[in-house]
Amino acid sequence: MPRTARGRALARLRATVFGRPLSNEEEMEERLSKRKALAIFSSDAISSSAYATEEILRVLLIAGAGALLVSVQVAIAIALLLAVVSLSYRQVCRAYPNGGGAYIVARTNLAPIYGLIAAAALLIDYVMTVAVSTAAAIAQIQSVIPRAYDIRIEIAFLSIALITIANLRGLRESGNIFAVPTYLFVGLALAIVAIGAIRIVTGTVGPIPAERDAVPFGSETLGILLLLKAFAGGSVALTGVEAIANGVPAFKPPEARNAADTMTAMSILLAILFVGLTVFAVAFGLRPTAEGGPSIVALAARTAFGAASPLFYMFAASTALILFLAANTSFNAFPRLAAILAGDGYMPRQFSFRGDRLAYSWGIVLLAAIAFGILWAFGGDTHALIPLYSVGVFLCFTLSQLGMVKHWLAGRETGWRWRLVVNAAGGVLTAVVLAIVVSEKFVDGAYLVVILVPTLVGMMLFINRQYSRSARELAVKPDLVVGRPHREERVVVPITGINRAVIQAINVGRSIDPDVRAVFISEDPDEAAAVRKQFERQIPGVPLVVVSSPYRALAGPLLAYLDVLDAAWPPGKSHPITFIVIPEYVARSWWERLLYNQSAKRLRSILLGRPHTVVVNVPYRREDDIEHPAAEDTAPKE
Amino acid sequence: MPRTARGRALARLRATVFGRPLSNEEEMEERLSKRKALAIFSSDAISSSAYATEEILRVLLIAGAGALLVSVQVAIAIALLLAVVSLSYRQVCRAYPNGGGAYIVARTNLAPIYGLIAAAALLIDYVMTVAVSTAAAIAQIQSVIPRAYDIRIEIAFLSIALITIANLRGLRESGNIFAVPTYLFVGLALAIVAIGAIRIVTGTVGPIPAERDAVPFGSETLGILLLLKAFAGGSVALTGVEAIANGVPAFKPPEARNAADTMTAMSILLAILFVGLTVFAVAFGLRPTAEGGPSIVALAARTAFGAASPLFYMFAASTALILFLAANTSFNAFPRLAAILAGDGYMPRQFSFRGDRLAYSWGIVLLAAIAFGILWAFGGDTHALIPLYSVGVFLCFTLSQLGMVKHWLAGRETGWRWRLVVNAAGGVLTAVVLAIVVSEKFVDGAYLVVILVPTLVGMMLFINRQYSRSARELAVKPDLVVGRPHREERVVVPITGINRAVIQAINVGRSIDPDVRAVFISEDPDEAAAVRKQFERQIPGVPLVVVSSPYRALAGPLLAYLDVLDAAWPPGKSHPITFIVIPEYVARSWWERLLYNQSAKRLRSILLGRPHTVVVNVPYRREDDIEHPAAEDTAPKE
Repeated sequence: MPRTARGRALARLRATVFGRPLSNEEEMEERLSKRKALAIFSSDAISSSAYATEEILRVLLIAGAGALLVSVQVAIAIALLLAVVSLSYRQVCRAYPNGGGAYIVARTNLAPIYGLIAAAALLIDYVMTVAVSTAAAIAQIQSVIPRAYDIRIEIAFLSIALITIANLRGLRESGNIFAVPTYLFVGLALAIVAIGAIRIVTGTVGPIPAERDAVPFGSETLGILLLLKAFAGGSVALTGVEAIANGVPAFKPPEARNAADTMTAMSILLAILFVGLTVFAVAFGLRPTAEGGPSIVALAARTAFGAASPLFYMFAASTALILFLAANTSFNAFPRLAAILAGDGYMPRQFSFRGDRLAYSWGIVLLAAIAFGILWAFGGDTHALIPLYSVGVFLCFTLSQLGMVKHWLAGRETGWRWRLVVNAAGGVLTAVVLAIVVSEKFVDGAYLVVILVPTLVGMMLFINRQYSRSARELAVKPDLVVGRPHREERVVVPITGINRAVIQAINVGRSIDPDVRAVFISEDPDEAAAVRKQFERQIPGVPLVVVSSPYRALAGPLLAYLDVLDAAWPPGKSHPITFIVIPEYVARSWWERLLYNQSAKRLRSILLGRPHTVVVNVPYRREDDIEHPAAEDTAPKE
Repeated sequence: MPRTARGRALARLRATVFGRPLSNEEEMEERLSKRKALAIFSSDAISSSAYATEEILRVLLIAGAGALLVSVQVAIAIALLLAVVSLSYRQVCRAYPNGGGAYIVARTNLAPIYGLIAAAALLIDYVMTVAVSTAAAIAQIQSVIPRAYDIRIEIAFLSIALITIANLRGLRESGNIFAVPTYLFVGLALAIVAIGAIRIVTGTVGPIPAERDAVPFGSETLGILLLLKAFAGGSVALTGVEAIANGVPAFKPPEARNAADTMTAMSILLAILFVGLTVFAVAFGLRPTAEGGPSIVALAARTAFGAASPLFYMFAASTALILFLAANTSFNAFPRLAAILAGDGYMPRQFSFRGDRLAYSWGIVLLAAIAFGILWAFGGDTHALIPLYSVGVFLCFTLSQLGMVKHWLAGRETGWRWRLVVNAAGGVLTAVVLAIVVSEKFVDGAYLVVILVPTLVGMMLFINRQYSRSARELAVKPDLVVGRPHREERVVVPITGINRAVIQAINVGRSIDPDVRAVFISEDPDEAAAVRKQFERQIPGVPLVVVSSPYRALAGPLLAYLDVLDAAWPPGKSHPITFIVIPEYVARSWWERLLYNQSAKRLRSILLGRPHTVVVNVPYRREDDIEHPAAEDTAPKE
């Protein structure tokens, strides 16, 4: 239990917001069933159908109304790509049941540097998932409540904060919260697709009147470049497909099999929704609107259900919700990857510390902060964020598939030939798409990722070099047997007067070694003389050194005195350890922290840089004072 | 010298921005001549003439153009008040040569609580001086460059930052920087007054055409309430008069005499400028403008010199400059008062620490932060800030004069009778003005000060109670003679593995006491067994305790183990001191601080709350490793 009133209040607040602490034994219960896993890990991929169609339409309308018809072919091409990628990832799930996705696959099969490139791309991908999904979710809200556009940044902040808190509470509850809206979205979206199919079959389709703020048609020719650009835009539908392969260990056993099945179910659902919604949009001549206007899926729902229908509002709500949940995918995946990277020495160690609720708190908070920062910088515009998103995703796909090709070549397990073919096809296709996305969307923002990936890789290599160097420096020879210590010691107690805290510190110093001296730093000779007189009378046997302080500072004169002490040491003898014993007053509340120990704090941080010096903090507590006979009768009980 | 590269770079940067450190001996040279003191301490009072006239006109124009004529009488009444107050303060200078102003006078003569009320009022006054003067300075810039209005908050930030840096550099250079613009302003303002006088004598006056954004005339009757309100507004001219009485010790000897003379010179100058500018404004029918328009003094300068004259621009520049310098008055006075209050135990002790340049850095930085905050909150509008300003000022005046009345009654020195009369007149007059200001400006912002003063007094009493309590708790009986320590000791070293830092920490622990045990916290039994095997082989004679950590945390299990250790101690024996020896890796740069010691840091802060526990930080440095034989041959030289 925390000792201060504020500590206890904070602990209570923590327990209310984040839930009671969990132990490792409770982790098994946190494992996900297929149904829950589909909700958690697939929300990212499935929710892409809420904005992927719109990305295709926005490109093609430059070539006029007729060009929009081509959308369906583009969507089908992307669905085929999805089939190959998802087949490829089924192999990954089975080959790497411990998760880690592109990073593990690329590192083990290709080379560590490819692993780091994949890791950098994945980290960017996760951040962008949060940013894009939140932006798209807010676009859904705007489609129903246009005035929400003005407070989109505030909504983004609130929703990211809520998801962060949910994740700091731990994984299991995430599954419960998130299953309902995912299945609601899938159900309603399938209903829209079905209504569209029926009306196409019954011949009751035709363009609905355009929105007031619809983007005007262009008059460019529909060439190969425009088609590639539309394909690059729509390929954002594939984002999030790799989440399941990264999260295999979160599944209930048999983990690999359950993950692979979930992967297939998800891909089929996504393909149906994406192609179906694209067909619907083309059939009814839906047109993208200027920023702040309704989204294509919202227009589709309105057309299918009618503007006044409760189903329309329900669909808009569930779309917004599943997109927020898609952001949540990253809150599972990013901290896990960061912990793996920290374990491998590529990220600061604190990313592998787990909090009370078995959540990697550092990773969760960092992800939330960066994602909100990007959203804010891009003004919450989905369309502006997407180019940054796709590059990272397809870079991961490519590295992961190429890694798998090497994996099958090296292992040659049963059936390795056809598995190799699947992964090779996936690798080549995704590499081509990567090239298309980078070249077609370079100036739109893809260049940022091209700069960021090497920067992140450099940072990770730098951190790794630091940890390796310190581990090498600290390593002990395996045959070494440590003997008893043989260094001499001396103790220095800096004091500001004579009180119980000082007496306790001096006695702790005498417990360490009999060679103790107190140092009084003063700018006033009269005060110094008075303190010396009192000290010699009350604390006999301990020498007092008075150091005059022309600069009115504490640390400088003390350091100067320690240097003099060092210089006086006989040159032949091995250097002694100097214990600096600093009396401290234990703050019982936040205001006491402001009122006390400001100079002790400064002293400690300065002395940490000094060789052969050990800092000893002696906190003084009244109830703890048994050195001092006068205190025992009056000390309050704890 | 700082040890890390970053430390040295920071020290160089500090020296460049803040100047080289000064020693106490250099302080005498920092004393101010009368000429320099007039520039530094009077800029506040004299610069009030740049906005006081305008405050009178803004009230009276509600009663129509004719009412503006009354301004001159109001200004003369305020000048008479100034004469009384300034005579009163001459007495303060002579009676209290050590400075401290209203706080010291009220505390010594009335009661400590009145001292605290005066101190609170003074602190508010100093903050408001910075805010109001900066806002008024920017209003002068706007009068010449209207577009500056849009970036007034940015200008305010920059100028407060510059003044802060100048003050952190120390007092002497302030004197040099500030003398020139003060005398330039006084010279040019006197020229305007003279030109006005000549034109009145030669009969060549008459209203100039009104500005485009002039405030329209009202049609209220000119009653006593409006007159009082005008008087309350114009009384802001008296702000800053007390600065000299506070700063007596900064004068060259004879301090009191020099300060009193400077006080008289300043009051005469201020009276001439204030009344003169008011007469000028009335004679030429100058009218205040809407926020963002030219100020009255700028209009006066334009009328006197002509809009194209270089003198007009020079006057605007010097007015802005003297107002910035007025803000500087508080940067001398506020930290001094805070240091006195800290010395008396009414403010946190760190306010009495002086920096390298003999400046009270904490006070300077706090003042800058609060003043900028207020300016920002009030949108940089001088007129809105003034009601807050006057209340504090007149509260100080009243308390100070009443204190002086008691002083003369108690001392009865030669000439005490007429001195008593002066101070009594001053006290009664300022009390009346205080009542007028509070009642007339209550809703305009004076209520804020009415709330703030008791709040600040409460805070100071609270801090004082804290310090008194801890001093009582820590006090030792004067007849106590401290004997040798008699408590038993034991040492606990929490480890995360076996490396040089851990070995060094264990050996430091063994130097403290032979009863050392290492504690290894692990969630993996296999890892624990391996560490135990290595430990027993390499560090024989030191018991290793393995604590399993179901929560994956370090601090919790360690605390639990320490509790077990305490429970096992024989109940009759006096409690031992437990030394917790924490190995640390010395960070050589800012990124190393992020990469290392995160868990050591957390452990230390948690253990500080534990009774009978002393935390020992053992920093590991390769070059310092003489415990470890293998290191000596390869250790890099410093």
